[in-house]
Amino acid sequence: MLLGCTQLMYAQENLNFGRQKEIISPQTNPDGTFTFRLKAPNARKVEIQGDFLVSKSNTPPTQEMKLGTDSVWSYTSAVLPSELYSYSFIVDGLKIRDPNNVYLIRDVSSVVNVFLVGNGKADLYMVKDVPHGTVAKRWYQSAGLKTSRRLTVYTPPGYEASKGNYPVLYLLHGVGGDEEAWMQLGRASQILDNLIAAGKAKPMIVVMTNGHTSNTAAPGESSKGLYKPIMMTPDVFNGDMESYFKEIIDFTEKNYRTGKTQNDRAIAGLSMGGFHSLYISANYPKTFGYVGLFSPAILPPASAASPIYKDLDLKLEAQKKNGYNLYWIAIGKTDFLYKNVSEFRRKLDEMSFKYDYKESEGGHTWSNWRDYLSEFTPMLFK
Amino acid sequence: MLLGCTQLMYAQENLNFGRQKEIISPQTNPDGTFTFRLKAPNARKVEIQGDFLVSKSNTPPTQEMKLGTDSVWSYTSAVLPSELYSYSFIVDGLKIRDPNNVYLIRDVSSVVNVFLVGNGKADLYMVKDVPHGTVAKRWYQSAGLKTSRRLTVYTPPGYEASKGNYPVLYLLHGVGGDEEAWMQLGRASQILDNLIAAGKAKPMIVVMTNGHTSNTAAPGESSKGLYKPIMMTPDVFNGDMESYFKEIIDFTEKNYRTGKTQNDRAIAGLSMGGFHSLYISANYPKTFGYVGLFSPAILPPASAASPIYKDLDLKLEAQKKNGYNLYWIAIGKTDFLYKNVSEFRRKLDEMSFKYDYKESEGGHTWSNWRDYLSEFTPMLFK
Repeated sequence: MLLGCTQLMYAQENLNFGRQKEIISPQTNPDGTFTFRLKAPNARKVEIQGDFLVSKSNTPPTQEMKLGTDSVWSYTSAVLPSELYSYSFIVDGLKIRDPNNVYLIRDVSSVVNVFLVGNGKADLYMVKDVPHGTVAKRWYQSAGLKTSRRLTVYTPPGYEASKGNYPVLYLLHGVGGDEEAWMQLGRASQILDNLIAAGKAKPMIVVMTNGHTSNTAAPGESSKGLYKPIMMTPDVFNGDMESYFKEIIDFTEKNYRTGKTQNDRAIAGLSMGGFHSLYISANYPKTFGYVGLFSPAILPPASAASPIYKDLDLKLEAQKKNGYNLYWIAIGKTDFLYKNVSEFRRKLDEMSFKYDYKESEGGHTWSNWRDYLSEFTPMLFK
Repeated sequence: MLLGCTQLMYAQENLNFGRQKEIISPQTNPDGTFTFRLKAPNARKVEIQGDFLVSKSNTPPTQEMKLGTDSVWSYTSAVLPSELYSYSFIVDGLKIRDPNNVYLIRDVSSVVNVFLVGNGKADLYMVKDVPHGTVAKRWYQSAGLKTSRRLTVYTPPGYEASKGNYPVLYLLHGVGGDEEAWMQLGRASQILDNLIAAGKAKPMIVVMTNGHTSNTAAPGESSKGLYKPIMMTPDVFNGDMESYFKEIIDFTEKNYRTGKTQNDRAIAGLSMGGFHSLYISANYPKTFGYVGLFSPAILPPASAASPIYKDLDLKLEAQKKNGYNLYWIAIGKTDFLYKNVSEFRRKLDEMSFKYDYKESEGGHTWSNWRDYLSEFTPMLFK
């Protein structure tokens, strides 16, 4: 009996391989452009929509694809700046995924195809031949919330083989995210691996939490089953994330070899996670030596009743008096939270609360948050 | 400044929420059926293709969907037996994903939507409110292959808090898989969590390897970048996986609290992974107390030159003489490897090599491999 390749090729389920001419999409061209392809024999109009295209108006940027031979529609991009891009196809008005690109990222209830363009900042987002940290999905017990909850924990290369203690960055997501968001959309483990390998960031543990305390885990990873994800959960602004964050610190410092001083702890987050980082760092005296607010939401709604949100000015005064190494705020010029962040900065200025400020192009985007993480982590634990 | 829900709802990128009437697909109906929906205003014909449908002929099972109001096409299934199912939509001949279902699993170069039907065997595949193990993506150094390579390591609930040693199951994938396959298509961590919680399986470490030695990691997780995955890699049958498997055992036993006797080690795999398990267990004397061959490929092609594949009969005689606790073979009645497995069993019978045998319905499918894992793990380390 000979078990050859032909037999095995038909052995796997759901296999598309070998049955039709291979379509590559997206294809990297030698001149730095990218070609996207879709075989759609009965389509009347095929478009591509993506964040690498230029928008003509307020609508999402879209380009028509051209019908070539074998019913394959294609579009070739301009030479693209280095970035992680996302796109969809639109076939006769219906938005679909690219069936020839298996790389997908979910954002709330949408899934989009992605591709990476190197030779620039997105080199940090790529898996390189450098030592890799370990990424673990691990559950901690929350006594306050009376449930176990899921975390993503990055331990840096060398952690397991060494005996030393490591500093910890607590990295928080926005309102649409969960403990997967910084890994998937944020490329956090790749950024850390590459910055550490280049000697630009200190080896650190990164704990990525789930900021929705009414969920125990990301969609599909809890006993709620395979439900359709929503953005707003009832926990937003109820103060639970901030109040029970101590449990996460305690779990981390008990279960990992960590430093246990203020200088060994950083907290950063984007949007809602920036809001969480602001209030957690203000409510936990002498706990965090480094704070990063990426496009942060600042104030809770007037209806938010938790004591966590009361007396912010007094808490900031105490934080200032207690001292810290870095308080870093970053926002894009066109971010819808720009004005709110400006008002917060004015407050900090008036009280001589020292902070560093980064103003970037663009808005409330993962492109900016990946940039901010790439810029923030090298400043930590020096 | 008040940052209310409305503002946040538009804060996230790629957001589909709130812009149109919410479509739920698949929807679980009270009578145990499932309704699938797709909004496709310009479509002329919409079908659903899935493994829960009954095939009329040799073609993949497909049903037409019906156009209702608001341009929403729908199809309601029969009452379905408990299982993890996959499906796609076909719109005017073009196979697409369900845009309202974010749960997707990749198999080689195809991505399909999935859903779970409970009240039966698939209850084991669901995340339940039971203690959860930790799942880590971790890299080990292969001296033989001169590279670091990625593993998925499941450590059972209680591992971190205890001081004891744990037995290890090495769990190997098929030719289309990688170190993600048993987690994604195989639901391995859910099956283990649930069997351990029910007292049906012993707490054990599960090490899920990448059986393609020409790859360091799953597609997208190595420095090869975001390439289109293929099934057959040049390493298949070159003997490297089997020859260098000792490095994985050594890494595991050095980095985890494991038992270090034959009784503390099991190896199992599906298809190509069954082939690997057969040859690894036969070539490593007194190493594995438990061997599981799930729909295994048996013989390499005549061109396979590695000494790993030579003198199988002599090696099996030695394995028999050395002893083991369990040698378990499982295959479906319609599996294309059925005849080959029958011949292998005849060989074992002729040499009085003791084994247990499970013959199931069905063929070379993940449905069977999840069943086999669910049945195999409770027999281990007793």
